[in-house]
Amino acid sequence: MKLLRYGPAGREKPGMLAADGTLRDLSGVVDDIAGDVISPAGLDRLRAIDPQTLPAVDGNPRLGPCVAGLQKIICIGLNYSDHAAETGAEPPEEPIVFAKALNALCGPNDDVELPRGSKALDWEVELAVIIGSKTKYVSEAEAMDHVAGFAIMNDVSERDFQTKRSGQWTKGKSHDTFGPLGPWLVTRDEVADPHNLDMWLDVNGERRQTGNSNTLIFNVPHVVSYLSQFMTLMPGDVISTGTPPGVGMGMKPPQYLKAGDVMTLSITGLGEQRQTVVQA
Amino acid sequence: MKLLRYGPAGREKPGMLAADGTLRDLSGVVDDIAGDVISPAGLDRLRAIDPQTLPAVDGNPRLGPCVAGLQKIICIGLNYSDHAAETGAEPPEEPIVFAKALNALCGPNDDVELPRGSKALDWEVELAVIIGSKTKYVSEAEAMDHVAGFAIMNDVSERDFQTKRSGQWTKGKSHDTFGPLGPWLVTRDEVADPHNLDMWLDVNGERRQTGNSNTLIFNVPHVVSYLSQFMTLMPGDVISTGTPPGVGMGMKPPQYLKAGDVMTLSITGLGEQRQTVVQA
Repeated sequence: MKLLRYGPAGREKPGMLAADGTLRDLSGVVDDIAGDVISPAGLDRLRAIDPQTLPAVDGNPRLGPCVAGLQKIICIGLNYSDHAAETGAEPPEEPIVFAKALNALCGPNDDVELPRGSKALDWEVELAVIIGSKTKYVSEAEAMDHVAGFAIMNDVSERDFQTKRSGQWTKGKSHDTFGPLGPWLVTRDEVADPHNLDMWLDVNGERRQTGNSNTLIFNVPHVVSYLSQFMTLMPGDVISTGTPPGVGMGMKPPQYLKAGDVMTLSITGLGEQRQTVVQA
Repeated sequence: MKLLRYGPAGREKPGMLAADGTLRDLSGVVDDIAGDVISPAGLDRLRAIDPQTLPAVDGNPRLGPCVAGLQKIICIGLNYSDHAAETGAEPPEEPIVFAKALNALCGPNDDVELPRGSKALDWEVELAVIIGSKTKYVSEAEAMDHVAGFAIMNDVSERDFQTKRSGQWTKGKSHDTFGPLGPWLVTRDEVADPHNLDMWLDVNGERRQTGNSNTLIFNVPHVVSYLSQFMTLMPGDVISTGTPPGVGMGMKPPQYLKAGDVMTLSITGLGEQRQTVVQA
């Protein structure tokens, strides 16, 4: 299934993308794409519905972030071997973990803000894992039972805020609109192999990032199990698993985003995002 | 006012501590201590109520974290000049910012978990600022208008997870129960000077931390204004402003918590917390 949320920011309704490409309204069935709705049992209940029996949604509404009710967005740093090589860094011995504040979450095609004073706004196409049920101290073998599905995240980053303003990376990862998520949550059963997905990101139509999740250093079960040793994962929580080569910071010389630039990005089977950069 | 939440974890009701020390039930007036309830207008509405007209709460219920509906817990590192000196670190040029995952939030007297494999569980008494209304790019002059009030936070930390497991501090700050908050949210009007509050923390009755917020490097308006340049602050969001000298990591040799240890901590006018350490 492809689950989504549509409508004005803050007032999104739950929906589903039917096999024929039409958008269907789930608001008569569930309150939101959140909590128990994305648990294994909740997803089974949705699978039992014939999408053609759901009301079709008119027009071409805005899409919101494809999940709600989450507690946290956790990102993994330097998790692609070819990206680590590009930055000159040694591959990490353990997953590098940082947090993106929830206010950053936005729809897949919303405008992305250039913060005031920003000179180093960068892009990162990433495979996001969406947790379906609470878990703590989970083994790698059982980790995937707690994954509802996958989505695209653009881990938008301000490199100067991230690395030149004292301390931890959170500062450069948490501005409003730094977390476009979607267009849909693709449930786990529809992703044959999350470790063999092509992904790309263009800026103004020029290819910047090209990668495949087969170069992940720490794979999805490992990351979920690892994180659950340090913090309890809750339904809707997003784990953004890292970015492949081709970020602006890695270009020679570095190239960063300016107002008016357009990012488009995609991962096999997970749809596509498109954001325009605007001044905050 | 002293606002609080009481009852079993996850099913807390809103309450108020009356001047006579009795706990009063606010559940007939507001849904929770969250969102608009802690905005300037929401607090004015609560101030208009005579606490003696509210139902008294029987017995001695568990207290939950004193605020709900928050998006984030942001902590400031090395923000006391005497604590920075103790660690041998230079005072930071800008606030050091890190995130504590929301699953860490718990009641002021709940047990604190010793994570599996933990050998370096530490304490940090901190003055927590609770945001009352949404703000972004706020000036220092206007920052306090967006502060609902103050509370005690124990910024419980696993030092090995924080500093020896690759990368960012979030890993050592986010275990369940690493964020006791309360006992109450003391509204701003009742805290004459947040920059002159004594604070202390004992372990098993022995004094470990002694400090006063008059040695804060970056004061409350500065921190609120500064953070709002990087992320939008939302109602209920907690900013834990840093810890004074006396943490276990700074002792020679370092001393850490073990199961059965009891932490008690207090800040002038904000009440007291007490946690027992238990094995996770």
